[in-house]
Amino acid sequence: MVNRYEKGMEILKITNKNRIQEVFKELDDIVPDLGRFIVEFPYCEIYSRDGLDLKTRELITVAALTVLGNADSQLKDHINAALNVENTPKEIVEAIVQMSVYAGFPAAINGIKVAKEVFKKRDLLPLE
Amino acid sequence: MVNRYEKGMEILKITNKNRIQEVFKELDDIVPDLGRFIVEFPYCEIYSRDGLDLKTRELITVAALTVLGNADSQLKDHINAALNVENTPKEIVEAIVQMSVYAGFPAAINGIKVAKEVFKKRDLLPLE
Amino acid sequence: MVNRYEKGMEILKITNKNRIQEVFKELDDIVPDLGRFIVEFPYCEIYSRDGLDLKTRELITVAALTVLGNADSQLKDHINAALNVENTPKEIVEAIVQMSVYAGFPAAINGIKVAKEVFKKRDLLPLE
Amino acid sequence: MVNRYEKGMEILKITNKNRIQEVFKELDDIVPDLGRFIVEFPYCEIYSRDGLDLKTRELITVAALTVLGNADSQLKDHINAALNVENTPKEIVEAIVQMSVYAGFPAAINGIKVAKEVFKKRDLLPLE
Amino acid sequence: MVNRYEKGMEILKITNKNRIQEVFKELDDIVPDLGRFIVEFPYCEIYSRDGLDLKTRELITVAALTVLGNADSQLKDHINAALNVENTPKEIVEAIVQMSVYAGFPAAINGIKVAKEVFKKRDLLPLE
Amino acid sequence: MVNRYEKGMEILKITNKNRIQEVFKELDDIVPDLGRFIVEFPYCEIYSRDGLDLKTRELITVAALTVLGNADSQLKDHINAALNVENTPKEIVEAIVQMSVYAGFPAAINGIKVAKEVFKKRDLLPLE
Repeated sequence: MVNRYEKGMEILKITNKNRIQEVFKELDDIVPDLGRFIVEFPYCEIYSRDGLDLKTRELITVAALTVLGNADSQLKDHINAALNVENTPKEIVEAIVQMSVYAGFPAAINGIKVAKEVFKKRDLLPLE
Repeated sequence: MVNRYEKGMEILKITNKNRIQEVFKELDDIVPDLGRFIVEFPYCEIYSRDGLDLKTRELITVAALTVLGNADSQLKDHINAALNVENTPKEIVEAIVQMSVYAGFPAAINGIKVAKEVFKKRDLLPLE
Repeated sequence: MVNRYEKGMEILKITNKNRIQEVFKELDDIVPDLGRFIVEFPYCEIYSRDGLDLKTRELITVAALTVLGNADSQLKDHINAALNVENTPKEIVEAIVQMSVYAGFPAAINGIKVAKEVFKKRDLLPLE
Repeated sequence: MVNRYEKGMEILKITNKNRIQEVFKELDDIVPDLGRFIVEFPYCEIYSRDGLDLKTRELITVAALTVLGNADSQLKDHINAALNVENTPKEIVEAIVQMSVYAGFPAAINGIKVAKEVFKKRDLLPLE
Repeated sequence: MVNRYEKGMEILKITNKNRIQEVFKELDDIVPDLGRFIVEFPYCEIYSRDGLDLKTRELITVAALTVLGNADSQLKDHINAALNVENTPKEIVEAIVQMSVYAGFPAAINGIKVAKEVFKKRDLLPLE
Repeated sequence: MVNRYEKGMEILKITNKNRIQEVFKELDDIVPDLGRFIVEFPYCEIYSRDGLDLKTRELITVAALTVLGNADSQLKDHINAALNVENTPKEIVEAIVQMSVYAGFPAAINGIKVAKEVFKKRDLLPLE
């Protein structure tokens, strides 16, 4: 029988590598189960499903977090993840800019600021 | 020089065909400029950009509108558009279900209800 | 000493006239205090304050409810109220359309639909 | 070993009884896994946890859905569930009214409308 | 006749003690009436009502602010208040984690971060 | 023929003066087109329209950004802009405080904090 936790961790190794360890550490002395849920529900049950590849999954998550606008830390993580599964910086920028149409310009501008911070750290700037 | 309105309409012919005409008609006697803005800003300026193809652009819009959760009419239009540019019903369903992780289960369930209505009308059910 | 309820009701007579009676009736057999709070807090304490006239107050409320996007019934009431305190239909339309910049096009389009319904009932269409 | 699905279904039998069957039926021909996720994640993993009883869990969910304001169908289900686990109508009303402070009056009024509909069907009105 | 301000302040002495004085000070040179509104509407009119005890009221507020996701300062205050009226750290954690179901994982994780900060300051960690 | 970019920049010179240059600089090495969109869509197409003067337009934007609650940087810019087109500090404060009714007290309090920061920098405090 497939172990759900291990299956989720395998996806996470591809997308986020070190980041999940930091999340575990943050949750460790308060509610470690939440860390387990993240591995088992989003990663084992959702990201590992057929029908969309990881590249597309991470890109729509970047779009979703840009729209939400109140989860900068997670947006940063998923922009990193999106790059890790072969999205180009340009594709990520396009997804964020498009959100100006659906969630307004402030959401798009703030998303771009987060992307810029990630790209800078990974030495990917300037783009154009 | 390229005409922005015509350039936007060309994208709309590919993605939404008839729907934009209905929007124009709705706006006609109150604020027709808003119809023009939709053609010129989202469609001419955003959807026609390089870096993401229309298939991916429509899929991230489906994700964004699922997260917003208060734009069922637009979600319906963009699920139709997503199908028109070669997203499979399965891909659309996966994008919506993934939003349960970022915007909660009610948003995902309500997004699926809208998708189901569209798929039914296009005789695409059952999926599985 | 000024009675807060009466002071609030005086504002409501200017802005919403009949509507508050319907709200009272809706709340009557479940939580009538909520009706009293609406009179005493928003209307007595906020709308009656110096510094902004009722015309401007109703217009910013129309903008706010357009942004929220999940309160169509209240948006309808406040578009009526905005008209009752001398906002023109054009001013209301402009406030709603401007929200496309901050909350996206779906919010603006849905706000315009609500405005259109109100304007139609008051025989104010076509605007342009 | 404990079966997660069965464990979740046991909670659902206490809180929602018939409702989950309708949700399954809605999802059946489009994405049945989403129905399974609902049983396994919210109900098996969250609602069955120690630390809060079901009565309190359903009440905070009513508060949460009132704040979200775009999930009337789920709010109706959870008001029913809240009643099923011994919340009084008065307690539910208080939780919704309190949300006026954090999410504004429209959210609270719309939540009360949904509660009223549920209470009416269960012949619980008038409350006061 | 009961003085609304004093009645509200009595609740605040139980729930937030020093915090309201800081809020007053922040608002003092810009809009002191907003401080008075907070005492008179949420605290005098809502929190003092029958039907829910203060312990439950503070817990649903923690849930509501977790869902909103853009009011960390208020969430911190209400986690403190929730502890002050006999909610255990575990109960607060459970309420926040449950919000992952309705508002997504980022909202829950960010809520836990705020709780952790409060618990640390009150020397309540580790929980488990 | 009117140049859209120049027309937008003329509005921006009145409302935001230096701020747009900073935005351009931020976007320069990642997606300069987004800067152009801001000039051409919000400023050329929306803010320059008849039907509402710039004073009112900036005030409803302050209200909108207060409601959104996740765009503090933009709220700061538009409070500055609102002052630049002859809104008094008092009018701005009133617009923000009124949002407590529609988006809750945390949104209003957080909006006031941003306003206070702007007013302090422009040496406009105390107001009362």
